[in-house]
Amino acid sequence: MKKAEKSFTVNGRGHLAIGGVDTLELAGQFGTPLYVFDEEAIRRTCRRYREALGRSYGEGGLALYASKAFSCKEIYRIVGSEGLGADVVSAGELYTALEAGFVAAKIYYHGNNKTDDELLFAMEKGVGAIVVDNLPELRRLAKLRQRMDRDQDVLLRIKPGIDAHTHNYIRTGQIDSKFGFALETGEALEAVRETLGTEGVRLRGLHCHIGSQIFDTQPFVDAARVMARFMGEIRRSCGATLTTLNLGGGFGVQYIEGDDPVPFEETLAEVAVALRETCKEEGIPQPFVLVEPGRSIVNSACATLYTVGARKEIPGVRTYVSVDGGMTDNPRYALYQAQYEAVVANRAGEERNEHVTLAGKCCESGDLLGEDMPLQHCDSGDILAVLCTGAYNFSMASGYNRIRRPAVVMVKDGLARLVVRRETLEDIVRCDI
Amino acid sequence: MKKAEKSFTVNGRGHLAIGGVDTLELAGQFGTPLYVFDEEAIRRTCRRYREALGRSYGEGGLALYASKAFSCKEIYRIVGSEGLGADVVSAGELYTALEAGFVAAKIYYHGNNKTDDELLFAMEKGVGAIVVDNLPELRRLAKLRQRMDRDQDVLLRIKPGIDAHTHNYIRTGQIDSKFGFALETGEALEAVRETLGTEGVRLRGLHCHIGSQIFDTQPFVDAARVMARFMGEIRRSCGATLTTLNLGGGFGVQYIEGDDPVPFEETLAEVAVALRETCKEEGIPQPFVLVEPGRSIVNSACATLYTVGARKEIPGVRTYVSVDGGMTDNPRYALYQAQYEAVVANRAGEERNEHVTLAGKCCESGDLLGEDMPLQHCDSGDILAVLCTGAYNFSMASGYNRIRRPAVVMVKDGLARLVVRRETLEDIVRCDI
Repeated sequence: MKKAEKSFTVNGRGHLAIGGVDTLELAGQFGTPLYVFDEEAIRRTCRRYREALGRSYGEGGLALYASKAFSCKEIYRIVGSEGLGADVVSAGELYTALEAGFVAAKIYYHGNNKTDDELLFAMEKGVGAIVVDNLPELRRLAKLRQRMDRDQDVLLRIKPGIDAHTHNYIRTGQIDSKFGFALETGEALEAVRETLGTEGVRLRGLHCHIGSQIFDTQPFVDAARVMARFMGEIRRSCGATLTTLNLGGGFGVQYIEGDDPVPFEETLAEVAVALRETCKEEGIPQPFVLVEPGRSIVNSACATLYTVGARKEIPGVRTYVSVDGGMTDNPRYALYQAQYEAVVANRAGEERNEHVTLAGKCCESGDLLGEDMPLQHCDSGDILAVLCTGAYNFSMASGYNRIRRPAVVMVKDGLARLVVRRETLEDIVRCDI
Repeated sequence: MKKAEKSFTVNGRGHLAIGGVDTLELAGQFGTPLYVFDEEAIRRTCRRYREALGRSYGEGGLALYASKAFSCKEIYRIVGSEGLGADVVSAGELYTALEAGFVAAKIYYHGNNKTDDELLFAMEKGVGAIVVDNLPELRRLAKLRQRMDRDQDVLLRIKPGIDAHTHNYIRTGQIDSKFGFALETGEALEAVRETLGTEGVRLRGLHCHIGSQIFDTQPFVDAARVMARFMGEIRRSCGATLTTLNLGGGFGVQYIEGDDPVPFEETLAEVAVALRETCKEEGIPQPFVLVEPGRSIVNSACATLYTVGARKEIPGVRTYVSVDGGMTDNPRYALYQAQYEAVVANRAGEERNEHVTLAGKCCESGDLLGEDMPLQHCDSGDILAVLCTGAYNFSMASGYNRIRRPAVVMVKDGLARLVVRRETLEDIVRCDI
């Protein structure tokens, strides 16, 4: 449990504790499946981002929480109170943030295919900037903007051509992507020109995002250099000085032992050096720097608790352990064969002495949480925790098999509080006529 | 559009029509994304199942609609009014069926990991049978049954050891499965013995399910023979005559041109012959036969309508067309690289003259509905239909990116009616605290 040990510990009763609270008590109080977050761990990481950016940029940098990783009202309150901004990718995320009282001016609105309704909603609410993905969007935005009484700040999403060597499905930034304007083809420069010439739209800067779950520093450094050079080119060929550079997210996290991402502080420090150098070479002022961590803020702060149900030992084949959740609350194994670490919460102090395939309760063979996972012996009624499930679990949860979405609790100062209530049967049929 | 042509036609305006209704009118009236079902096509298929079973078994057979394929109140009303039973796999599906007025006695309750709450709920509501997956479940059921005033009918889920040669993720029935009791190892016979000796539980028969989207007849025939032989073995070694045999579902459907499943009538007829033969050989009476079609009842009856947004031509790479839905309403490409046919609804009469990659609006590179799909030329504002999306689309829909789940309409006699309303922003935060 190495790096995650701040959130996950074994208490005196040999039980897994999260943020110091016994997970068996949590399962008893709130039921399972249950997402349990260590609030202090989230806040600590927010502060680490603030401090790292402060060391490099003083007041000239800001972390935006990439809320697609985990979006609910409470997380916006938490990251907001730690001084972070937020990025949102839909009207639903924006609405949630605003309902939580998040300051609109610190929200950046993303997306490869924003609808008119979404653009209007974002402008009406006064988001800090809209990150424009393509020229038809820019033109729609300019037209819709006429209904507003002020100009709209925008960034342009650029594909810097950096390949971040990550899982194919979560790779972006290269030219073959549905997102943004390509640099190599001249498309990006053309977009800058058109944006600069568009009335009512203020081009504040550029955005890029080179991938997800990136373990190395170099792709980030390369992307920063490419973007700064492009800002130099814009200054030379368009006479415009852009003031903001959003370098996106993608900072890798540890899911299982052996995952060894570079700590984001190191990456940010190296990026800052490269950026300063390149801005100097290009003769442009240092831009205000944004980064968009999502996974790295919430993932390691959370575990999902399940109750073990059926256990099936198939001689010579494998042992299946079924839990009361599965791909409905964590589709990442089904989607990406993502690897997780699991622990039997009531035997957390014991050695993992067997390998099991962890199955969910969906009526689907592919409903697995992992295959051949090392685990303490467990049987029906035990509480099982899958660790590091804070990102892209709750947010990707489905209603498959009409299984109710689990509750979410935050643990802080030894106390747990509900932040998302469990769906009820009435919720399941709420939209049915 | 071959076999699906009954539901999908091109009308006089050159528009795609579903069940005779212009899809552009539907998109205008209900918005997009929108699932549109041809109710008559669903009813027709229900009747085909009834007639096919009637030809082989007279009153001795019944089709249960496998509602995990598409579950909402209205579909239970429709299949119920056509005389079908239903299978459900969760409390949520059972609740939905009951809220729709479905007769509990015609509902079969499945699942590899039923909770006590679910077992109690199913018994209290009087479901026709619970399909028991494992012995601990049987023992829990027997204990919970003591609170009831009547015995509980059960079937046992058996792995017949038939490999249906289908996509790895949707293959079941072989010994390496989280579902059911293995025949080969003697586990199944042991389970039969224990069930027969369990007070308050009445073993009515057996269930098997050999896979999904099976195009051939042979695996079904083999499974029927294996199960009938096992019923003979049970009679010889336990002295018990089981009266029900549930052969599950898995009848293949056409998604794209080239998919060529055997019509289920042929399969059912051949299965009936094999079953009669084997029962005779085994000296057992012909059992009541259940089958569980899901996908084959709803899939070809539905298309999803989207509005085209961004179009991105990347020279020498590919063309991305983004729509206002994606993996949130249809995760089957992301999960299984499932293939679909798409058509530009307002140019449905024209040739498909280009190949595009169809992308969704999620902030995720893997959010695609298909790659290099043949399509009529389309641009922003066009209505695009993805065909044959009735199964495992709405039912697997997620709230990723806090995107609202689409509405569902049924079209019948030239009229469209809402059967599931679109989620609102208020729905999105309903469980947030």
